[in-house]
Order: sequence, then structure tokens, then C-alpha cells
Amino acid sequence: MPHDGKLPIDSFQEECAVFGVYGSDEAAVHTALGLHALQHRGQEATGIISFDGEKYHGHRGFGHVGENFDAGSGHLDKLIGHAAIGHNRYSTTGEPELRNIQPFFSELAFGGFALAHNGNLTNAERLRQSLVQTGSLMQSTTDTEVIIHLVARSHQTDPALRLVDAMKQVEGAYSLVCLSPQGLIAMRDPYGVRPLVLGQIGDAYVVSSETCGLDIIGADFIRDVKPGEMIIINEDGMTSSQPLAPQPSRFCVFEYIYFARPDSVMENQHVYGARKHIGHELARESHVEADVIVPVPDSGIPAALGYAEETHIPFDFGIIRNHYVGRTFIQPTDAGRQTGVKMKHNANSLSVAGKRVVIVDDSIVRGTTSIKIVNMIRDAGATEVHMRIASPPTTHPCFYGVDTPDREKLIAASMDTSAIAKHIGVDSLAFISIDGLYRALNETGRDPNAPQYCDACFTGDYPIEPQRSDGKSTKGIMSK
Amino acid sequence: MPHDGKLPIDSFQEECAVFGVYGSDEAAVHTALGLHALQHRGQEATGIISFDGEKYHGHRGFGHVGENFDAGSGHLDKLIGHAAIGHNRYSTTGEPELRNIQPFFSELAFGGFALAHNGNLTNAERLRQSLVQTGSLMQSTTDTEVIIHLVARSHQTDPALRLVDAMKQVEGAYSLVCLSPQGLIAMRDPYGVRPLVLGQIGDAYVVSSETCGLDIIGADFIRDVKPGEMIIINEDGMTSSQPLAPQPSRFCVFEYIYFARPDSVMENQHVYGARKHIGHELARESHVEADVIVPVPDSGIPAALGYAEETHIPFDFGIIRNHYVGRTFIQPTDAGRQTGVKMKHNANSLSVAGKRVVIVDDSIVRGTTSIKIVNMIRDAGATEVHMRIASPPTTHPCFYGVDTPDREKLIAASMDTSAIAKHIGVDSLAFISIDGLYRALNETGRDPNAPQYCDACFTGDYPIEPQRSDGKSTKGIMSK
Amino acid sequence: MPHDGKLPIDSFQEECAVFGVYGSDEAAVHTALGLHALQHRGQEATGIISFDGEKYHGHRGFGHVGENFDAGSGHLDKLIGHAAIGHNRYSTTGEPELRNIQPFFSELAFGGFALAHNGNLTNAERLRQSLVQTGSLMQSTTDTEVIIHLVARSHQTDPALRLVDAMKQVEGAYSLVCLSPQGLIAMRDPYGVRPLVLGQIGDAYVVSSETCGLDIIGADFIRDVKPGEMIIINEDGMTSSQPLAPQPSRFCVFEYIYFARPDSVMENQHVYGARKHIGHELARESHVEADVIVPVPDSGIPAALGYAEETHIPFDFGIIRNHYVGRTFIQPTDAGRQTGVKMKHNANSLSVAGKRVVIVDDSIVRGTTSIKIVNMIRDAGATEVHMRIASPPTTHPCFYGVDTPDREKLIAASMDTSAIAKHIGVDSLAFISIDGLYRALNETGRDPNAPQYCDACFTGDYPIEPQRSDGKSTKGIMSK
Amino acid sequence: MPHDGKLPIDSFQEECAVFGVYGSDEAAVHTALGLHALQHRGQEATGIISFDGEKYHGHRGFGHVGENFDAGSGHLDKLIGHAAIGHNRYSTTGEPELRNIQPFFSELAFGGFALAHNGNLTNAERLRQSLVQTGSLMQSTTDTEVIIHLVARSHQTDPALRLVDAMKQVEGAYSLVCLSPQGLIAMRDPYGVRPLVLGQIGDAYVVSSETCGLDIIGADFIRDVKPGEMIIINEDGMTSSQPLAPQPSRFCVFEYIYFARPDSVMENQHVYGARKHIGHELARESHVEADVIVPVPDSGIPAALGYAEETHIPFDFGIIRNHYVGRTFIQPTDAGRQTGVKMKHNANSLSVAGKRVVIVDDSIVRGTTSIKIVNMIRDAGATEVHMRIASPPTTHPCFYGVDTPDREKLIAASMDTSAIAKHIGVDSLAFISIDGLYRALNETGRDPNAPQYCDACFTGDYPIEPQRSDGKSTKGIMSK
Repeated sequence: MPHDGKLPIDSFQEECAVFGVYGSDEAAVHTALGLHALQHRGQEATGIISFDGEKYHGHRGFGHVGENFDAGSGHLDKLIGHAAIGHNRYSTTGEPELRNIQPFFSELAFGGFALAHNGNLTNAERLRQSLVQTGSLMQSTTDTEVIIHLVARSHQTDPALRLVDAMKQVEGAYSLVCLSPQGLIAMRDPYGVRPLVLGQIGDAYVVSSETCGLDIIGADFIRDVKPGEMIIINEDGMTSSQPLAPQPSRFCVFEYIYFARPDSVMENQHVYGARKHIGHELARESHVEADVIVPVPDSGIPAALGYAEETHIPFDFGIIRNHYVGRTFIQPTDAGRQTGVKMKHNANSLSVAGKRVVIVDDSIVRGTTSIKIVNMIRDAGATEVHMRIASPPTTHPCFYGVDTPDREKLIAASMDTSAIAKHIGVDSLAFISIDGLYRALNETGRDPNAPQYCDACFTGDYPIEPQRSDGKSTKGIMSK
Repeated sequence: MPHDGKLPIDSFQEECAVFGVYGSDEAAVHTALGLHALQHRGQEATGIISFDGEKYHGHRGFGHVGENFDAGSGHLDKLIGHAAIGHNRYSTTGEPELRNIQPFFSELAFGGFALAHNGNLTNAERLRQSLVQTGSLMQSTTDTEVIIHLVARSHQTDPALRLVDAMKQVEGAYSLVCLSPQGLIAMRDPYGVRPLVLGQIGDAYVVSSETCGLDIIGADFIRDVKPGEMIIINEDGMTSSQPLAPQPSRFCVFEYIYFARPDSVMENQHVYGARKHIGHELARESHVEADVIVPVPDSGIPAALGYAEETHIPFDFGIIRNHYVGRTFIQPTDAGRQTGVKMKHNANSLSVAGKRVVIVDDSIVRGTTSIKIVNMIRDAGATEVHMRIASPPTTHPCFYGVDTPDREKLIAASMDTSAIAKHIGVDSLAFISIDGLYRALNETGRDPNAPQYCDACFTGDYPIEPQRSDGKSTKGIMSK
Repeated sequence: MPHDGKLPIDSFQEECAVFGVYGSDEAAVHTALGLHALQHRGQEATGIISFDGEKYHGHRGFGHVGENFDAGSGHLDKLIGHAAIGHNRYSTTGEPELRNIQPFFSELAFGGFALAHNGNLTNAERLRQSLVQTGSLMQSTTDTEVIIHLVARSHQTDPALRLVDAMKQVEGAYSLVCLSPQGLIAMRDPYGVRPLVLGQIGDAYVVSSETCGLDIIGADFIRDVKPGEMIIINEDGMTSSQPLAPQPSRFCVFEYIYFARPDSVMENQHVYGARKHIGHELARESHVEADVIVPVPDSGIPAALGYAEETHIPFDFGIIRNHYVGRTFIQPTDAGRQTGVKMKHNANSLSVAGKRVVIVDDSIVRGTTSIKIVNMIRDAGATEVHMRIASPPTTHPCFYGVDTPDREKLIAASMDTSAIAKHIGVDSLAFISIDGLYRALNETGRDPNAPQYCDACFTGDYPIEPQRSDGKSTKGIMSK
Repeated sequence: MPHDGKLPIDSFQEECAVFGVYGSDEAAVHTALGLHALQHRGQEATGIISFDGEKYHGHRGFGHVGENFDAGSGHLDKLIGHAAIGHNRYSTTGEPELRNIQPFFSELAFGGFALAHNGNLTNAERLRQSLVQTGSLMQSTTDTEVIIHLVARSHQTDPALRLVDAMKQVEGAYSLVCLSPQGLIAMRDPYGVRPLVLGQIGDAYVVSSETCGLDIIGADFIRDVKPGEMIIINEDGMTSSQPLAPQPSRFCVFEYIYFARPDSVMENQHVYGARKHIGHELARESHVEADVIVPVPDSGIPAALGYAEETHIPFDFGIIRNHYVGRTFIQPTDAGRQTGVKMKHNANSLSVAGKRVVIVDDSIVRGTTSIKIVNMIRDAGATEVHMRIASPPTTHPCFYGVDTPDREKLIAASMDTSAIAKHIGVDSLAFISIDGLYRALNETGRDPNAPQYCDACFTGDYPIEPQRSDGKSTKGIMSK
């Protein structure tokens, strides 16, 4: 895998998507469409496993959903059956190898078992070592496989009860969809960190990471799967249980800021609306005189529109995005500065020359992109450049399935706002406050004793304790 | 090539891009970056040929620039030399085969000759038949190869004079870049239909289809290459000549409407600005009471912003675009209607529910997409749906290098505006007038005796007579 | 895998080869050469795993050794370390999938463990079901993986003791080579059914399925590994133990007849010599007046030479073999009969026209090839065609790692010699007698109470009881 | 192409094969089978083009016939039509690129034209330069393309007359098969250097490089195509003409020694018989006391059998060949000498230990293999090693389509027989005399004034003058 061919990324990265259908003769087709709508949550690899009541059928591959399941490939034709689950992968754990692509499948004592997982287990490494010590063979480097081994070792007979056995040993954030002879099983961690919604199309049930996965197939949204809830869907219909004691909900607030697609609805809030509200709050908190509000496309657009609405300063596209970006190029040594950023963005001088510009972006992670964008806008003739950020300063890494840099690389972990402003070269810089963020989400503010969301990346307040293995290496690693 | 895997397209399609650099040790790197910035003009295939003074070096492949020339591929490392030309291909003529990917290269009597071409020759088939009759072997199915054969047969000695010989026999629209032992040669057809600009970075000269190709490498824009002009760049610097008598300029007006990147400047007009002006004119011509102006993203955005500016009706994103689209999926039979359009677009109900909506799009070609988008917006709760189009009705196909449907598939060729409005199900529909379009481009209106642009797709007024071969087929075609 | 592209085969098929080196900085290079010399034992896939004291390095792939490990591939350069094991695969169990290619590698509690296996476990399916019932996840469909799971579950600490634990639970025929932090481990089943020899080159030890694997690297032959013996080679040198009680040796007699390379020496007998002796015995048992002795090349050559020596009838090549065969072609419907056999063999009419011909072949399995060859020789002008077979009638399938048809497809299971003669159309037919075969191997005859070889394919006298699973299928199979 | 992965070869190399069928609905199937039988004449690449009366259909690829046209590939199914031609390529001119694989196809003025060629044009480079100077574009680096350009430029109307026009300008050795709207055309150079035979199956005609290509499909041999003859086969049947004045036949004598398959009949002589006769002559000319006659397999076998027949010394296999060879391996530095040769051959000590051995080989080219084989036989315990060679000393390169080393690398060009004997370390060495070779072919001896064969590689007597281009390089080469 030419993973050195990827563009270095200066943002938090989407994690993964899961999707599942039970009760349609076109389960796999629906799953492919749902995964396509969820492509923004993972582009490295994708896979679908279907079940026809007798046999499982699967295809997994690197690349986008469209590349793996387009009509010309023929893969979808083979995925027969009334039930299917699928997964988009953005690697958080595990190497970019074919064996790490989900859904995972194993033949267990009760029959076939397929599993797809969005999230991250905080005690996976400890569980993995324990399993190896007692004779389990690991075929992948993902924490997802740990769950399957725990299911395989359970003394329960029903697949669903075995899964409960397994998840009681596991800590972390997860939204799971499984296929078994018992039907489709969906499960969400007790804190409900990662999203999972339930829908219906005709007689079939659908589970999806986001509602945009329901929209694309014309399915109706029923409700969010609840924290700690297990849903089983089979020929007898849908049953819900609560095998894991639910904790106070700590849904990931960054889903609203950046991860989710703007047309999705999560935990009863419209993502696009939330982002515009963030823009409103941000404008109220940190107004500045200016001539134009310019979003960093595409993630900064709704907040910028909200900011413009609140301030009545014109909104315009001062930065044009090239959607074909995605790989690292050799950078010429004799070119002007900022070639890197121009791979993805170019200033639209018409909209910024001679103007006082407010740039609105969703977040600042390392700050490297911000520097380049500010320079680019100044080069294009802006007289003032102000930056407004639609999230609080990101000071802590995520351990729940989001790809974040180490803490020392988070600029806000070591600099305050005025130092960052100086570093990136803006005339003024403001982040939305943590309480402003909560207000934009219809709270009166953050409850410090019982925060309504997981906001650990801004506060360091981790609902589930992150753990690390002792790191002892054995003489057992096989190089690729 | 799984060309059946492509999404059926309901728009005019970008044609091709050309790029060239002379005088930089990083000529190929610059060319790759330039082609990346011009990726919107052709995504099927790409290629670069470089020249080190002794030997030519090349790589051509299907797919995007980033897939072919990323740092991991190693291809760019081999493209040594101080000069390079490159091409992005969207197939207008020729099958999707490797041998049809440009730049073309041949060893001629004077040495190596490489050529990349944006446009279409209207007399290519006749020239091809004549060449075959007199003993030339054709290795591709493109009209570009015809030019090389004419160069090969010229009795002139200099490559540039041979190229002039060739282009005097050719009719059509073209912007060419060539590499020869005599240097880099660029040439534009006498009407200047297709764009081509000249720039400079350090001591090196650059030619590019659009200015965004200059921006990405930090090159300075010098000027547009003139209609009928030939530019030769070599160790002696740049020389310009006018071997083909220039005709009154007939630059393609659709470049402003849709093809060009919004941050490019063409023939002294900023594309983004032109699009906003079109929105202004459109609003003046066909105002309607409404609650929100919604662009069909991304191509409808600038005109929608202009429309909103002019009318003071709020601009909002009522349609969310999935940028990962690009392949045909199997469509489920049991899904709700409109799955096809939802592959690419989804309604953002928050922005349209309960509102009178004006949708702004760049053009209507077949009308199939418009029907689906209107239905989608109505399903999302809009109370009224009006459509405003940033171009006049497209009634005629293009013969100058743009992929357009046959005339009978152009909805505006057989229906008037009110019939189209009924067909696509809107409460009102308006196209910008042809004079309104010219006003948006700073003209007082269209000069019917000497139109300032090529607008044949709206008027049928073709500056260069389209020709067709007699179509006699011989026993000589080899199937793939 | 286009396994439908393979030629249907009318012979018993070679099984697998194993090879291992400890103590040379060029362990992997030697292993590749050794596997190349053993290519006749398996052509479907090949693999090598090396160990450098810290890490394991591996490459596995479909195709021949030369295709996977030639100098141009670069794979061998990465297989650093002083120890290596390798495997050639002809599939006996398991699908032709990459995950089934040996050597297998797993990270166990003590570190990395690699294993390559020639043979077949007769109780593998029962063990596999038991492992799955108690929570093991199977990643392949081979019986080899069963051994690794048993090693992983052993409560012993040393890898070698764990392997002994595992092999005590296993029944069947096997020659194993393993790599572990404890060194290279080789082991042979208690009956010594499959071959395994020990050699030395400089300070390094070598194990190989046949001596021809030693010859190619210039290693000296030390001795055969003994039935039930375990050999451990590491920095302390070589140690031998006998953890499994050896049974009376039952070495596979078919190795002498067909499987082994003629230049190998097995159990102190030269294979080429054994085959010529079989020819001598065959001639004594079933002499017939004739003009020429014609081998079915290549496997019938030594016996034919022996037959000619004994009878003083001239030996000549009446059949020419095309060594490029190996795939199924579409067969023309309008062609003469026998196109199939002509893919591999053609009559050499000069040597057979007008003559009484004795054809010598190694065995008759289905009889289909014999029919075609006899027809071909008659068409080429032979006046009489006699067939002499260098093995007794094959009446029973092998369960010890050889790919044989089901019993009902073995022609000798349902027809006596005269019926077969009539069926294949010869003037006379004779097989060597079972005692004649033993005499050719320097025995006075077969000891019916304690047969000196495994000859179950001729006698049905299986030294290890074949077992089958109950065949109950679960809802758990994943189609490819 | 990993051409560095090929084993360095110490023999003259087969050149190419051509095959064609007209008049069968299974023309392409027959062609694939014929090419398979002719695989020994070229293994680098293969191709078939068929014609259905309207369209041509083709597939070309690297690798063996079986890899490209096996039932699983589906390629053959698309090659519809009643006529087909095919080619196996061993590269003599042209790089190993796809565009150089034959048959070539072009659309000419009269329709499609496909051509496959065995041989070499001695004035190709001069013709190529002249064509380029006058405006032809070359798409390959083969001399075959030169013929097609000459056909394209001819002022004749009929394809066959155009081909005659072309071949009158060409010098060299060739056997051609072409497909055109006029039918299948076959042609042989005026000296008849390369073989070409005519056959019939049902109503269909077949042309093939050797008779073994007829045998495999059950076609009947009619006769050899005559030197300078052109055969046209179409719906009107077969017509023969003699457009090029035939010269005294100079058929390549090396076809009998090595190139042809032993079961083929060429120019009325059975190849296997000729090789045995050479063995007889060789024994008469250079008898030596010995215990065993050992062939270097496979090419030395018939001559060794003949030698043994004549001398009544036993024939035995003292060298075992590994048919899986074909790539270069990394050679271990610490291994014993001669690993290279052992990739392909191993001594069979049983047959040579303690014996006086006569090794019979077909030819000595560089001598490097001979040295290794002699050493190997001595190491295996031979008391004396004598070498007998079934051809005269090879002192000159071939310019007629055979891949031979430069003259300075031919050991017999610089050493006499006794020096070679000393160099390769044998107790005695003898080549067959040139007259002995002619006697084995039923001549009374070589006619020095009008040699009955082309034997230039032994005598330097070239029937067609070899020519070379002036070698002036232009600034026009494109590196790969």
C-alpha cells in the first residue's frame, strides 16, 4: 500500500461507518448505497457480507464503495440474501492489509458470524495478550478481532448472548453490527459515544451510522439506537434489550462539528443546523468588523453562513477547493511557498482583494494548514485577515475511534489563543467557547459535573479511561 | 475499461487540459501540479512527456493525476529534463484505450515529437481517410494522431514549420502544446475557441489551459495565447508568430458558465465573477418571490450567490453534494424513487421545509436530473419550487471538443421553456437570455452579425462548419 | 484462481514439498533453490519464511518458485536471517486461496511460530470441530492450521514440547518443518510415510523432502529423518529425540514409482535405480514378443529402459511430450479425436509405424489417458500395441497427502486386468505384481503380516485408519 | 518486464512460430492449439487475430499460449470468424513491449490487414529510416512493421499484390501469414530459410511453421510451402503463385539439429530420424571406448540414442533435467560450485559413477554449460568423460531470425576442438563434420558450390548478405 502517497492531514479524521439491512432481497444493494452515503466516514477500504439463510457471501477491498461495488464489478451480484452488513474503514488500528478490512467473518461453533465495528476498544491490547497467552491465534491487527475471539470463547449458546458476554469484557466506544444465524444484531456502547440509527424500508429494518445512509435508499428514520442497547432483527421482527447498563449519554460532540454529513440528523439535532448555530454563537462571542465572511471549504461553510447571518457581513467564496486532492505529490523546490496547500485550496482573489476578511474553519489541529491559508489570502490582497473557529481549542487526543495526532502535535495543547494567532499570522483569532458550543446544541451550557457530550478532545474529560498495554515485545513479529 | 461503471451524465462534459513548461529542471513536477489543478477538465486519463535535450521520457495512464504521479509511484522521478508537456483526457474522440492517451509521441525524421491537444478537429475523419489511402498507418482512433501524421509528411525541415503545414490543413478548435528538438511549441486555433494561457516562473515559461494551473506552481500570468498564434519557447527564449490568419475571436462562452474552475481568469474576465454576474442578470430578468435561494452544488453556487445578492433573498444550502460519486451502482428495485440522484445529491430539509425555494443550476441538458432534484426538494417539504438556469436553453451539440448528447436528447431542442417547466415539475422556470448572458460578460448584448463568443450550443451559429465523414465502413475494424 | 483452467489429470498427484535451513546467512536463498529442485512435488503455490533472531520475514504466492523468488522479484532480498523454511503446495486440503499457502505463521504466547507440512492428518476434521467448539477461530481451511492451534493451546512452555503435545493428538502422515525462537524443528510421523532427509552444508543444517533438494545447493546428505523422530537445530547444534513411539516403517511405495525425482535417494534406495529394477521385474513377469519398447514420457522412461535392458528389445521414443502443457483449452468440435491427449503427447510415427510396440507407463488411474495413447500409437501405424505398467493395479485412494480420485473412478477398482485391456484397446496388458514390486525394491516379496511399505493404494491395507467427520454442515460457510 | 529474471542461455534460441487457418468456424481454436504445439519456437508472447468477414478480433499477451488462451480466460470465445492467424514470439528484434507482440494489425486503404512473421529482414533498418524520412510513423521497434508500411504504401489495389510489392523491397529470411479481406495469404522467402508447411482439415486449409502444429488438430499434411511461393486461401479455395523468383533452397540446417520438435517432418525428412542419423554418423566419425552413452536432456537424446545404437554401448540417463527452470535465481555465495547448472540439470550418479561416460549434446555455443556438466559428471564419479556434439562447431552468428551471441562469444570462433576440449575439461571431444551432417540428411556430402542448406552458423557462408544500418542516432528516442 502506497500509504506514503497520502496527503499529510491537518484535521481530525473520520473513523468508520457501519451499515446493516435485514429483511430485503436487495439487502446488499441497499448496504452498498448506504455505505456510499457514509463514504465520508472512511475511504481506505470497504466491505459487505450478506447471508442467505444458508451461506454467507462477502467482498472486501481497498478503495471507495463505488470502486468495489459498482455495477461493472459484478461483486454485488454475488452477495445474495435477505440480510447484509457493511463497513467503511478509515484505519484507526491495524495496518492497511486486506486481512484487516471489515466486516470480519469467522465460522464459530454455532455457525457463521460477521461483525463490523465503528469505534475503538480501550482495553483491546490487554485482552489480545490474554487471548494469545491462552491459545488464540490472531489473524489481524485490529481490535475488532478481539471481540470475535471473545464471542468464540463464550460458553453461551446463542450468538447474541455470546456477544453480550464479549462486550461485558470490553471497554471503549463502539457501534457494532453483526450477522449470525440468529439474525442481524446491532449494539452501541453504554455511553453512546459513536452514532448508530435505526430505520425501516418496507418490511426491512436498517441500521446505519448516520441518517444520510437511510435517506439514500428511501428508508424512514425510526430512532437512534440507545446507549448500551442491543437490537436483534430476524424473521420474528425486531427485539430490543439493554444488556449493558447505560451510562449518562456522552455522544461525541465532534460529530456535530466536523465528522457527520451536514444533511444527517443525530440524537434529534440536525447537523447542518447545529453548524449554523455554532456560527451564530461564534459571531456573538467574537464579532469583528469585516467586509466578507469566507469559509474554508467544505467543512467551514455552514458555520460561516451562520456567522454571516448573525453579523450581516456578506458571505462569499474566497477560497476554491479542488475536490480531486488526495495524494502527496513531489513538491518542486523552486516553486513559490505554499504549493502544498494549493493542491487542495486556491484563493479566489476577486472575493478577498482589498477586503477585511473573516475566515471561518471548523477546527485547528496542528495549525500548519491555517498558516498556509492565511498567507494565501493575504497574498491575494486581503487587507485584514481574521480567523474564527467553530470549535474550542483541541487540546487532547481521542481514544474512541478518531484518528488524532499525539498531544504534542496539537497546537492548542501548548499555545494559548493569542500565541496561536501570532503563529498563524492573523489579525485576530477566536475559538467558540465550550459553553458557546453547548448553547449552539440547545443546552444552556456545559454541565461540568455531568457533561452532556463527550468533549474530551477539548477538555481532557474522558468518560472511559484510556489504557495502554505494557508494550513488551516478543520475538514474534512478522514483517510484511 | 468498465465504462459501463460510469454514472450517466446529465451535463456538458469538460473536454481536456493541456500544460507545458520549458526551462525548469523540475518541468515534469510543475506539469504534474498544473495538471492536478486542471483535473476538472478531464479525469479519464493523464500523461506527461519530458525532454532532456537528448531523450524523451514519458508516462501515461488511466485515472487521475494524483494516481499516476503521486510521490509513491516513482513515475515523476523518471521524467527528467528541462521541458515537459502534459494532458488530462476526457474522451471526446477515441476509445478508452491506453494507446489513445495523450501526449502522443513519435519518432519523426527530425527526431522525437510529442503533442497534446485540447479541442476537436472538424475535418479529422476526412484527413484520416486521405492519409490511410496514401499509406499512413494509424495507431490510435483520435484526431490528434492525424496532426502528427501531417507533421510527419510535411516537406518542411523545422518542426514548427511542419506543424504550421499541418495546421493549415486542419479545421476545428484546438489548443496544442508540443515538444520537439526545436523546443516547446504552443498553438491556438484561429478563432481561439479553446483557452490557452501563457505564464512565467523564474526563467521558465509555462502554458496552461487555465490560470489555475499557473497559480498552483506560483507562476505569474503573462497573457492569453492569441487566436492563430504560435509560440516557440527554447533556449533562445520565447518567440511569437501568427502563422494562421486570426479570425474574429469566438471564445467558448460555456467556459464561463460551467467548464472553467471558478478561480481562473479567462480572456481578462474572472470566471467566478462572471458567474455571479450571470446570477445578477438572471435575478433581474426573472425575479420571483421566495424564501431561500438554493444552488445545485457545486456548479450552481456562484450564480445562486449572485441571484441572492441581487434579490436579498437568503442564500442557503438546501442540497448537499456527495463528492465521492462517480460510478453507476445497481439500483434497488424496491427502493423509493430517485435513488440515482441521491447518489450525488441529498436534500437538506432544514433549509427548504415549509419554504418557497428558488433552485439555481448552471444548465439543463437532458432534464433528467432536474426532475429528480425538484422531486427531492418537494419531498423535503418545500411549498414552492422555482428553477433559474444560469445559461440559455442548450439546443445544439458542440463539435469543438465538448462531449454533448445528440441533438434529439437536448430537452431544449424540442420543448420551449413552459413545456420544460411542466416536464420537470416546477412552479416556474427561467433561463438567462442570450443577451443577458452577454451583458453578464460586460458586453452590451450579443452582436448577431459578429458574435463575441462561440455560443453555438445556444444559437446553432457555428463559427467553424462541422463536417462528417461519408461514413462508409470498410472491412477493417478490429474489435477490442 | 482459474482452477477450471487446469488440465484434468489422470494420475496420482504429487503432494507437497518442505525444506528448511538453519545456520546460514543465505538461508532463504538456499531454501528457494531447494524448493525449486522440489518443484515437481507441488506447483500451485510456494512460500518461504525466514527468521533473523528478532523478526520473521515471509513471502507466499501462487505459482512456481521461480516466479515468486527469481532475482527480479526482490522478494528474496527481504527474507533475511540465518534460518528459513519453505513449502511447495499441491492442494490436498484447502481451497486455492492465498490464506491457505504455507508456511503458516502465527504469533503465539512464546513468540512467532512458522510451520510447513507435507502429508495429511486423518483426524483433522474432528480436531478442527473440537477446536471451533471451544473457541478457536480458524483462518484457513487446511489441516495444517489445526496443528498450530494445538501448539497454541498447549500448556508446555517450549515450542518443541508444545509441538510434541500437538502431534500426540494428531493422526496421519506428515513431515513437518517449523521455525520458532527455539530454532528449526523437523518432525516425521511415526510410520515415516512421507519422506524427509537431513543434510549439511558448511556449518548449516538442511532438511528437505528429497535429496535432490540437497544436491542443488551442494549440501551433503546425512541420513533420513527417522519415523517419529523430532530434530531441533539451533545455535547449540542439532539434537534428536524420539517423542513419538516409532511404528514399523511404512514408507510410501509410490514415491519410488512416480512421485520422487529420479535422481533422489530415499530410504537408502536410488529412485532411478528402483524404477529400472521395476522394469526388469515387469519384463520377467510379462514378456511379450515386440519390436520396440516405448515409454510414456517422462514418468515411464526408467521402467521402459529397464524393460528394454531385460528383454533386449530396442528402446525408442515413440511418444514425444510437449512440456508446455498445463491448462485446459477449448476443444474444437470438428477436430479429429484425441485432441486432448495431443496437448501433451504426440506419436512419433517413425519409431512405431509397422512395429509391434510395448508401451511402458508408471500407472493406470482412470484409464482415460491410456485409451488415447493406445489409439494414437495405432493411428501412427503400430501393428500391435502392448501395455506394461510399472505398478500394481491402483484400487484404493490415498488418505496420506496424495491427491487421488474417489475409488469409483479408479478403473482397477472395478475391472480386472483383462477387462481393462479390452477397455483401453491393447493386444495385451500387464501390471507388475505386488511381490514383483517389492522384489524390485530389494525385498524377497511383500510381508503380508508386516508390509515393508505403505502400499494401501494397491492393497487397501491402510497403516493409519482413515477417518471422516460426521459431515454435519453448519450455517457458517462463507462462499468465495 | 523482468527480463533480468531470465536464465542466461547457452544455446541458439528458437525464433518464432506462425500458424493460420482459413475455412473453419473454429479457426481461432485450431490456431491456439497449433500455437501450443509450436510453443517451443517462442515463449515470450503470443497472439491470435481472427476475421469473420466483417471485423477482425484479436488478443495478444505476454506468456505462453496456455496462459493467454486457456478455457478460463474467455479470450478465445471472442475470436470469432472462419479465418485466424497466430504467432509465438521469441524476441529477435524489438523490445518486450505489448505493442511489439504479433500478429500486427492495421487498417489500410483496402480494409484490415494482419500479419505474423517468422524470420528476420536483413535490410529492415535501412527501410525503416527511409520510411520515417518520408513521413511514416512507426509504432513498434520490430522489422515486421516495416513490411506493413510497405504494404500500406503500395499503389497496387489487391492486398496480395501489395504484399508482393512490399516483399520485393525486402531482403532476409521470412515465413509470413497474413489475413486480409482477400483471404489468408502465406509467403516464404526465395531461399526458403525458415520452415512453413501447408495442411488441410475438412474443408479448411492450415499453414504452420511445423507439422506438429497440424498433428495436434488432426489436420493432414499436404506439402511444404515452396521458396518464394505465395499461397492465397479464400472462399474460392487455394491458389499458388511464385511472385518472387525462387533461389536454390537453403533451408536452415539447425532446424534438424535443435529448433524443430522431434516429431515434426521438414522438407520430407523426419526430424527425430535426422537426429538419430546424426548420432550414427557421429559414432562412426569419432568412436571411443566407453561404458555408457549419456544425453544432455532433452535436445541431446535422439543423437545419443543413435550413437548408442551404432556403438552398442548402453544408453542411460546420467543427467536428470528439471523442467521447471526458466528464471534467474540469486546465487548463494557460500554454496558449492555449479549451482547455476543444477537449476536445470542434476547428475544421476547411479548411471555414471565408476564409468567411462560419453556425453552427447546438440551443440556448443559459449561452452559455459559444457564446463559445468562435465564437472558435474566427474563429481558424480565418472572415470572418463568424453563429449560428442551433434553439430559442427558454431563459428558464426545467424542473421535470419535466430537469437545467437555475438561472434566473439562463440567459443568455436576462437578455439579449435582440442583447445575447447581442454577448456571444458573432457578426456576427448568431437563435433560431427560438416559433411557428416549432410550425410545424416541423406546427402553424399556438402556441395561447396551450391550448399543444399543454410549452414552459415558453421561455415560463414551466408546466402543473403547481412546488412547493418549506419547507426546514426537522432534526438528522438523515448525511454520506457
